[in-house]
Amino acid sequence: MPDSPAAGPRKAETIYLTAIDLLADSGYDELTMEAVAQRSGVNKTTLYRWWPSKDALLAAALTAAAPLQISIPDTGSFRGDLTALAGEIARLLTADETAAIAAAVLSASASRPALAAAGHQFFSERLERERVIFDRAIARGEVSADIDPGVVIDLLAGALWARLVLRGLAIDPRYIDAIVDVVACGTRCE
Amino acid sequence: MPDSPAAGPRKAETIYLTAIDLLADSGYDELTMEAVAQRSGVNKTTLYRWWPSKDALLAAALTAAAPLQISIPDTGSFRGDLTALAGEIARLLTADETAAIAAAVLSASASRPALAAAGHQFFSERLERERVIFDRAIARGEVSADIDPGVVIDLLAGALWARLVLRGLAIDPRYIDAIVDVVACGTRCE
Repeated sequence: MPDSPAAGPRKAETIYLTAIDLLADSGYDELTMEAVAQRSGVNKTTLYRWWPSKDALLAAALTAAAPLQISIPDTGSFRGDLTALAGEIARLLTADETAAIAAAVLSASASRPALAAAGHQFFSERLERERVIFDRAIARGEVSADIDPGVVIDLLAGALWARLVLRGLAIDPRYIDAIVDVVACGTRCE
Repeated sequence: MPDSPAAGPRKAETIYLTAIDLLADSGYDELTMEAVAQRSGVNKTTLYRWWPSKDALLAAALTAAAPLQISIPDTGSFRGDLTALAGEIARLLTADETAAIAAAVLSASASRPALAAAGHQFFSERLERERVIFDRAIARGEVSADIDPGVVIDLLAGALWARLVLRGLAIDPRYIDAIVDVVACGTRCE
């Protein structure tokens, strides 16, 4: 028995990449344990030993797969960190390697509750990692201690998505500066 | 000949409602001029006289159909207007009557370029109507004259969507206050 399913089998990264590639290429319905096993060259029994369902595998893949990782910036200022973070999110939303995966997860609605749940888990774990940006900004006296990191990340990530998907417009550094300006200034009001 | 296709035929509202109902119930692929004609009791020739394609009809329906309209608030303060507007957007995203339509438009990605384009047109026209909120706030001296309304609306609407779709969490008045606090304060910084 493995210590923890979170650790994953030896070929975990290959399995994760296969799962998110299948999601991006063929969509959620075509993503099956069978297809992941075949394409990654791993026995189906092995997959089921680690993940009870394709949804469990997908949730793990979204959280752990290397292309979906963002580095948590540490630039020395709150505004610098938000700018770097917004740039990373914009990259995930637009880069060849990740745009289709992002679109699949972001468009999961009531009709794909398991995929939506995997997305919720992904964004919840990411928010936990992003908290350090706020802890450091509070320690530096840049923002109030009662700031809600979730609200700030929603504003930033939501605006980037609105610009790209709702308006069909490109995200450039000027746009990132504009949203960071509002958010960074707004968090200093009492 | 009608003066302008934007005016629409006599049964325009029925046709619009039928089109957005079909989109919500069956999805973009099942939405055809044939189906709209049948369900709304309007001759297909009439539809084509006004709209050259289902995409043109859909774009008109999104912009004009009553359930998707939002009233532009005029509360006397920028913060009050943003709060009311955020409440209206939250309602569109969650109400029984509109949530499925919103989900269909918001999830239109590269695979549904015509639906995405109809969405872009919808949000562009809506932004034009929202500008008066900013004009009045500038006239009252509440915000700087170089404020970009698109940036502010992206932040608000994007955060509401992120909260609901990415995080799977409910939007309550406290959340709306929190995002409006950041945005209204942030737009006062120089």
